[in-house]
Amino acid sequence: MNLKVGDTAAISRQVTGDDVRAFAELTGDHNPLHLDDAVAAQTRFGRRVAHGMFGASLISAVLGTSLPGPGSIYLSQTLQFLAPVYLDDMITARVTVKKIRAEKAIVTLETICENQHGETIIRGEAIVLVE
Amino acid sequence: MNLKVGDTAAISRQVTGDDVRAFAELTGDHNPLHLDDAVAAQTRFGRRVAHGMFGASLISAVLGTSLPGPGSIYLSQTLQFLAPVYLDDMITARVTVKKIRAEKAIVTLETICENQHGETIIRGEAIVLVE
Repeated sequence: MNLKVGDTAAISRQVTGDDVRAFAELTGDHNPLHLDDAVAAQTRFGRRVAHGMFGASLISAVLGTSLPGPGSIYLSQTLQFLAPVYLDDMITARVTVKKIRAEKAIVTLETICENQHGETIIRGEAIVLVE
Repeated sequence: MNLKVGDTAAISRQVTGDDVRAFAELTGDHNPLHLDDAVAAQTRFGRRVAHGMFGASLISAVLGTSLPGPGSIYLSQTLQFLAPVYLDDMITARVTVKKIRAEKAIVTLETICENQHGETIIRGEAIVLVE
């Protein structure tokens, strides 16, 4: 396994209203907080927000395509949703290797999503098996 | 808050190859384990599997549309990925209320996904704020 503690990788992605509608269609999560301007205006957020799992899926994308990369198998993920993702926010998902159990090919990574203002929107930890 | 400990809700959903391709396009997670038959055949699974976050998103769908329902705001989620989701598997995501802190409108739920064979594929816990 060609990894070391401290290795890091990230992807950035703007989350549009079309993306949020597509995510709702694909997963069946039609919570009006994500889809209905009038309902969302009545919530603490004041406007529509993206699904939390959309941000979480960007973390998965980094793990599966970059670090550890293709062949990675998810064992677990924790997710704290700390702040909302508003439509058209630019989200950066970053993963950093924290621990390697080489004999079992198991890697623990810190996983964070930030928005374009540098606010942390998701914080958590992934454990991944590297084939 | 009109909820009580033990309340439960579920949705079932077949995850097709088209769904997995759409999820990869939407999230950027092009791990070949999900998309490439030849690569997937070389892994421990022997064939393509769905993204773990697809199953997790079905949990989010139950929370956001059924229990606690629209207006729910995700605070946290833990996910243990215990078994793969193969293409065309029928996944049932079930959530069950475990604890209610009524003064803060915060609900803790057990969250489980099973396949059509009754195998648990994801196990975890959600904490949700109910507006």
